[in-house]
Amino acid sequence: MAKPREALNFPSSNSIHIDPYLPSTSPSSQPSSQPNKPFVTLTYATSLDSSLSLSPGVQTVLSGPESKAMTHYLRSKHDVILIGCGTAIADDPSLNCRIEGVGGYGGEGLQGQPRPIVLDSRGRWNVTRESKVVKLAGGGKGKAPWIFTMSEVGKERREILEGVGGQFVQLPGKDGMEWAEILKALGERGVQSVMIEGGGHVINTLLSPENASLVDSVIITLAPTWLGKGGVAVIPDERRNEQGSKIAVGRLRDVKWVPLGEDVVLCGRF
Amino acid sequence: MAKPREALNFPSSNSIHIDPYLPSTSPSSQPSSQPNKPFVTLTYATSLDSSLSLSPGVQTVLSGPESKAMTHYLRSKHDVILIGCGTAIADDPSLNCRIEGVGGYGGEGLQGQPRPIVLDSRGRWNVTRESKVVKLAGGGKGKAPWIFTMSEVGKERREILEGVGGQFVQLPGKDGMEWAEILKALGERGVQSVMIEGGGHVINTLLSPENASLVDSVIITLAPTWLGKGGVAVIPDERRNEQGSKIAVGRLRDVKWVPLGEDVVLCGRF
Ligand SMILES: NC(=O)c1ccc[n+]([C@@H]2O[C@H](COP(=O)([O-])OP(=O)(O)OC[C@H]3O[C@@H](n4cnc5c(N)ncnc54)[C@H](OP(=O)(O)O)[C@@H]3O)[C@@H](O)[C@H]2O)c1
Ligand SMILES: NC(=O)c1ccc[n+]([C@@H]2O[C@H](COP(=O)([O-])OP(=O)(O)OC[C@H]3O[C@@H](n4cnc5c(N)ncnc54)[C@H](OP(=O)(O)O)[C@@H]3O)[C@@H](O)[C@H]2O)c1
Repeated sequence: MAKPREALNFPSSNSIHIDPYLPSTSPSSQPSSQPNKPFVTLTYATSLDSSLSLSPGVQTVLSGPESKAMTHYLRSKHDVILIGCGTAIADDPSLNCRIEGVGGYGGEGLQGQPRPIVLDSRGRWNVTRESKVVKLAGGGKGKAPWIFTMSEVGKERREILEGVGGQFVQLPGKDGMEWAEILKALGERGVQSVMIEGGGHVINTLLSPENASLVDSVIITLAPTWLGKGGVAVIPDERRNEQGSKIAVGRLRDVKWVPLGEDVVLCGRF
Repeated sequence: MAKPREALNFPSSNSIHIDPYLPSTSPSSQPSSQPNKPFVTLTYATSLDSSLSLSPGVQTVLSGPESKAMTHYLRSKHDVILIGCGTAIADDPSLNCRIEGVGGYGGEGLQGQPRPIVLDSRGRWNVTRESKVVKLAGGGKGKAPWIFTMSEVGKERREILEGVGGQFVQLPGKDGMEWAEILKALGERGVQSVMIEGGGHVINTLLSPENASLVDSVIITLAPTWLGKGGVAVIPDERRNEQGSKIAVGRLRDVKWVPLGEDVVLCGRF
């Protein structure tokens, strides 16, 4: 297959800095309690004031073309990419990988394409034949999504999703789906690496004191702009020590800052 | 004078990246309406979730020793450094410059020492003989502060401040002191460059749509940590275009990211 026009390229002069943080080259922190936990990479792009977008539902171009290429490079290095239903509803995202050489973009079949996972406990996301992930899966340009949910799924939605090879995965949970359960379900399905892309709610719960230790690598793009009040913000819940004093939620280790166009990419480990 | 033990060093291999953003080498954006406006550098250190400190009044070590040395290098390159009374009250900061070679730290007199300016419209900061800035000025290790205020000043405070060579500067204003007035008052007193260091309220008002154009250079240190909800946050007010849609508050030009120890320093212009 010829290289399609929309294929992206992420040069090795850039990827060389990022590769040590990717699942293939980093050891996963496998707590003995969860032997099959996939390698978890948390990745997102924010403004200087820690916003992911101007408002919920307003797609906001934060980072430059180099960072976009990096995101697609990262997608090619993970088995699945995961988002919350808030992002699915607001953005109708494509969630495939358009890096040059993967399946659909110069490569064979669906080789190198990650599977999209959408967390949707209460079935709020109305997946249709027009949803981008469904169309891309139907057109051989992306893997079919799995939707993780706690609620009953109507016949029509199920047919649409299963029609392109996707599935609904039923998870236990009372108030919501726990991260440990989500990762367990992925591990049981043979998933070895997951890239968590957002949005705000998903990132904040993952960075909370109970869950942060599940994260192996963090790759954040920062753009030199302020979005101002009212944005979708990454601000995890506060953390306190035994004496009740507020302490930092988490500090990254093995930190590397990689300037990329106008942006900077922060790589680190928990 | 021998180099005192506490003097800091910021090597030229680092300063070479920062120098183009400093007053001596950058042209000031002098709006014709304000011919004597000093060159304004905005500088602060935040976490990834855009917090300056864990809570108001809790001094929080965010950045590493290299960034601390940079702050003192920047101070040596400005006529004055300015903070809000919130920071003066919470931190009792030293506000002098401890870079090797300035007056008090290996150099003669007070050469290279910036003058501290504290914005205190309502006289909330109780400056005493024990305040660090007063003690340092008394001991020849820093210039005496100027306190900008709109309120009456009691005899005792005035004597303390004037006793070390400082002064209260009376500014006009109804609800508060305007940035244009503050910079005008500095310009009238021969100040050619001001480094604005914080805290949250000062930075947020300066980054607001009405004031951001007064800023010439921005030098921000980012530390690879999240502080969590409840911190002193840098989040400017939102900005809307003529159609009423929310837009970014401001994007920096001429951007440079300089990794420095575990932190990164972002330099840019408005
Ligand atoms: N800049 C970036 O990198 C980036 C990336 C992605 C998204 N975004 C932006 O982020 C915004 C959407 O963010 P958002 O906060 O509204 O939505 P979100 O984080 O995408 O989705 C949140 C929803 O996911 C569901 N969910 C299920 N299990 C969860 C779990 N364990 N933890 C957290 N959530 C779980 C919850 O809904 P239920 O309880 O109903 O299941 C929750 O309300 C959009 O504006 C999008 O453009 C930006
Ligand atoms: N990480 C860093 O780089 C850094 C740097 C500095 C401070 N900090 C932290 O920031 C925190 C303090 O921040 P803060 O927001 O409470 O206080 P702040 O910004 O230092 O001071 C705010 C006060 O300054 C007065 N002010 C007078 N004119 C002003 C003007 N034009 N614009 C804004 N304020 C004006 C106002 O009080 P009146 O109306 O009473 O005059 C206002 O409430 C502390 O925890 C400190 O440690 C961190």
